[in-house]
Amino acid sequence: MTHTDTAAAGPEVTEPELAEPHLRAVLGTAGLAVEYVRAQDNTLFRLDEDGTEIPVVDFAGGYGSVLLGHNRPEIVERATELLASGTPVHAQFSRHPYANRLAAELNRIVHRELGTGEPYFAIFANTGAEAVEAAIKHAEMDRGMRLAALREELAEHTASARAAVAAGTATVTAQALGRAGLDAAAAGGDFEALAAELERHNAEQFARPPLFLSLEGGFHGKLAASVQLTHNEGYRAPFKALAAQARFVPRERPDALKEIYAEERRTVRDVRVVDGRVEVTEREFPAFCAFLVEPIQGEGGIHVLSPEFAAEIQRFCESVDCPVVVDEIQSGMGRTGALLSSSQVGLRGDYYTLAKTLGGGIAKTSVMLVREARYRKEFEIVHSSTFAKDSFSCHIALKVLELLEADGGAAYRRAAERGEALRRMLTSVAEDFPGVVKEVRGRGLMLGMEFHDQSGSASPALRDAAAGGLFGYVLAGHLLHRHNVRTFPTASALNTLRFEPSLLLTDAEIAQLEGGLRDVCAIMRDEAGERLANGPAR
Amino acid sequence: MTHTDTAAAGPEVTEPELAEPHLRAVLGTAGLAVEYVRAQDNTLFRLDEDGTEIPVVDFAGGYGSVLLGHNRPEIVERATELLASGTPVHAQFSRHPYANRLAAELNRIVHRELGTGEPYFAIFANTGAEAVEAAIKHAEMDRGMRLAALREELAEHTASARAAVAAGTATVTAQALGRAGLDAAAAGGDFEALAAELERHNAEQFARPPLFLSLEGGFHGKLAASVQLTHNEGYRAPFKALAAQARFVPRERPDALKEIYAEERRTVRDVRVVDGRVEVTEREFPAFCAFLVEPIQGEGGIHVLSPEFAAEIQRFCESVDCPVVVDEIQSGMGRTGALLSSSQVGLRGDYYTLAKTLGGGIAKTSVMLVREARYRKEFEIVHSSTFAKDSFSCHIALKVLELLEADGGAAYRRAAERGEALRRMLTSVAEDFPGVVKEVRGRGLMLGMEFHDQSGSASPALRDAAAGGLFGYVLAGHLLHRHNVRTFPTASALNTLRFEPSLLLTDAEIAQLEGGLRDVCAIMRDEAGERLANGPAR
Repeated sequence: MTHTDTAAAGPEVTEPELAEPHLRAVLGTAGLAVEYVRAQDNTLFRLDEDGTEIPVVDFAGGYGSVLLGHNRPEIVERATELLASGTPVHAQFSRHPYANRLAAELNRIVHRELGTGEPYFAIFANTGAEAVEAAIKHAEMDRGMRLAALREELAEHTASARAAVAAGTATVTAQALGRAGLDAAAAGGDFEALAAELERHNAEQFARPPLFLSLEGGFHGKLAASVQLTHNEGYRAPFKALAAQARFVPRERPDALKEIYAEERRTVRDVRVVDGRVEVTEREFPAFCAFLVEPIQGEGGIHVLSPEFAAEIQRFCESVDCPVVVDEIQSGMGRTGALLSSSQVGLRGDYYTLAKTLGGGIAKTSVMLVREARYRKEFEIVHSSTFAKDSFSCHIALKVLELLEADGGAAYRRAAERGEALRRMLTSVAEDFPGVVKEVRGRGLMLGMEFHDQSGSASPALRDAAAGGLFGYVLAGHLLHRHNVRTFPTASALNTLRFEPSLLLTDAEIAQLEGGLRDVCAIMRDEAGERLANGPAR
Repeated sequence: MTHTDTAAAGPEVTEPELAEPHLRAVLGTAGLAVEYVRAQDNTLFRLDEDGTEIPVVDFAGGYGSVLLGHNRPEIVERATELLASGTPVHAQFSRHPYANRLAAELNRIVHRELGTGEPYFAIFANTGAEAVEAAIKHAEMDRGMRLAALREELAEHTASARAAVAAGTATVTAQALGRAGLDAAAAGGDFEALAAELERHNAEQFARPPLFLSLEGGFHGKLAASVQLTHNEGYRAPFKALAAQARFVPRERPDALKEIYAEERRTVRDVRVVDGRVEVTEREFPAFCAFLVEPIQGEGGIHVLSPEFAAEIQRFCESVDCPVVVDEIQSGMGRTGALLSSSQVGLRGDYYTLAKTLGGGIAKTSVMLVREARYRKEFEIVHSSTFAKDSFSCHIALKVLELLEADGGAAYRRAAERGEALRRMLTSVAEDFPGVVKEVRGRGLMLGMEFHDQSGSASPALRDAAAGGLFGYVLAGHLLHRHNVRTFPTASALNTLRFEPSLLLTDAEIAQLEGGLRDVCAIMRDEAGERLANGPAR
């Protein structure tokens, strides 16, 4: 019959392996297929072979979901209260004052950080990837409405120019024909030839698919459309035929933006009557649907957007009327000392996506914010989700914001301060192992340590790990089994370990990680891969 | 500062309206923008103007999410226990025995219902739409791998035929050239001309985008790709350029499948050496990526798939090697008396998607099941979600299955029996108002009542409601305010009210709905739209 299991499961699973057995086997090769049975603050507890709990300091932090700590007592208490009070989780298609309150509270903080008062409208979803999907959909709906308005305006202008020519109050000049790319002499000033050519040119632009821009190394989720904005080709290529493609922009290269402008920018041709002459002008065509930007790339291997490149992106997007979608799913929610990490580099989003810590490590919730100037209220009628905007998640998210904002923003300050302490340690390790550590990057509690490529190591174990595409995972297995520290690289940046602990991080926990990092650094320096563990010590 | 609110919010929101104010206004016109403050069993409680709770019988049921009742005590208890015990919600990239146990338990039930023993592998997600996205991605990855294998095989055959021709052990016949569409005489038996023509033909097929089939009226979510499988054009059209398109198949029309076969089926040309002759044969090309089917359409207006059409779909898909994705997100999880409603019409899915009640009305979780014969283990490496496969949701889902399976499946029997009782009432109303009720449809606790179009009514209020695209919502507003009953039409079927209560449904609740339905039917019969309420009685 069914399993009346407890949270701490029994010693061994006897069922067939049906939930991603291949992934489990891959994790197993790096010693990472351990079972966690409990989580508190910065600690995940795993069971050793005789069933006793081993505390593991968690620097993976749910990829950014538990900034406030695992099972934060105030959040658990709020969740328990909500459940006990019979909160109406499923009350779709009614008033959701808690959602509105959450949107208002997010606005209050966003306004403070951006120094603006323009409202941001909130569309709620359940996961980060869903928020990105909502942003893509909204951006394309908005572009479609702009296209329709532009098309209508062009048609009106053509009609009124035609009427003026017919009435003899305007003439088609050679200059107009020339601008339309027609031979002025051959066309003989015929308005219909001009109109047909403009229509042909414009129709070609209107038929173009939406163009998305995303940064190299960018990660924006793994749903069918959002994965096409994610740079890692392994995640994206098998699903290419399913959704619109993105053009990937090299990081920190303003000249790349100029190239893209030159190659991708399009104009339509408009016709107006001025002083009795039919004139042809060029107008910007909204070819660019959205530019997706992470202020700090997580999956990409912790790359921080510079204020300079942020300004270039902003300028570029303004010049082509392309909305900037700032993906704060991993970097936001206080991790770097602000709700919006992008506000620290002067980037202003037309859209923001927030998730992970928004749910406090318990609820699954996300939000997509759109500034009023770009917002299309029609979106509310065509987009929805059964699970989104629910009372449980909204109340938990309100509690998260309350915890972040309490005491004049002490949590933001703590995240920044703990981040600095962690960074100091990482930097000191890097300085002591210059031949091993390539770079320490990041901001606040979103940090990374990149190692030099080990494929030339004299140690076969290190060479094989580097060649096998599991390098950082092998280090992670060693750190887990020898140092009780949990951290991962990313599939897109195998030589970079990522550190995203909660703001409860203690000096002792930092020291524990330091011990582990100095150990793996020494192993690499000594080319002594045989010292790597990939399972429990025996 | 922040709001330390309680679950039951105060009388009026004073913040700016930033969470879908337009939708709220639309709901308001039908009297539906009420605030619910508590939910239990089949009841949602709203506040009246002086702050007292008014119980509303919920036939909307979270669009199928609360089959076991709102805040089902056993599930609330389990959730509370999980929170209290510090369940490791965020333990990505480790062993998840609870996920495996859930997959095994789902398999046990699926095997019983289908009478097979073939394993179904489980990919977990967070929402129904995400499960559909995972199915689409898996189906396209599988198709891509089949394409690659086919392409390789064709290339090998060409190479070995070429070698045989070069060695003089095979000749190119006129028949082969003819089959390739080449003029046998003109081409003169040249193998390279034949190979080039086959390559050209085949390359054309390989370049085709994936083709999805979905039923007219089908609903499979609103994410960027899943929304393209959703028939309602209003949901889909603004986002067409974002994702692969589907071809929509008329319901219950086997000849439509034949037409689609004739129009969309493609073959590639293969070459083999047989008895010293180069022969060209046609082989099925996997043009069809997936056929999405709801056993009972929810959003489409409660349309039940017949066993006969289910068999036609199954045959069609086998003939073109197209996987059947059975979307059980709304119909499944016991609602019709079985975990898989499709098992009641003899449809076997290559994939299943389950969500809504899988999370017990509290957790957000979904699963995509793929039968072993179609499963690609490589998918586990490229697809993932931070929030999915978590301990909290998996344990809640296990509790849901335990509740469904307890006492030899009493819950399934109760859903079927309560469904029959509800259906008897609906049928009796339909019989008493033959000029008003067009049809009663559905199975188990997934029922619909369609009304005749009222755009010809002598009552201006009814005519206007029918013309304004809000017809069923206006009825819903009346039922809410005069009868304390919550039900909705769908945006895709405005004349059909949908009933998806929990299996706790009592005879008294059925009688309360009956009173409401007889009232609205009488209003329509009497063409007395002025009797409709769209707000609280005064």
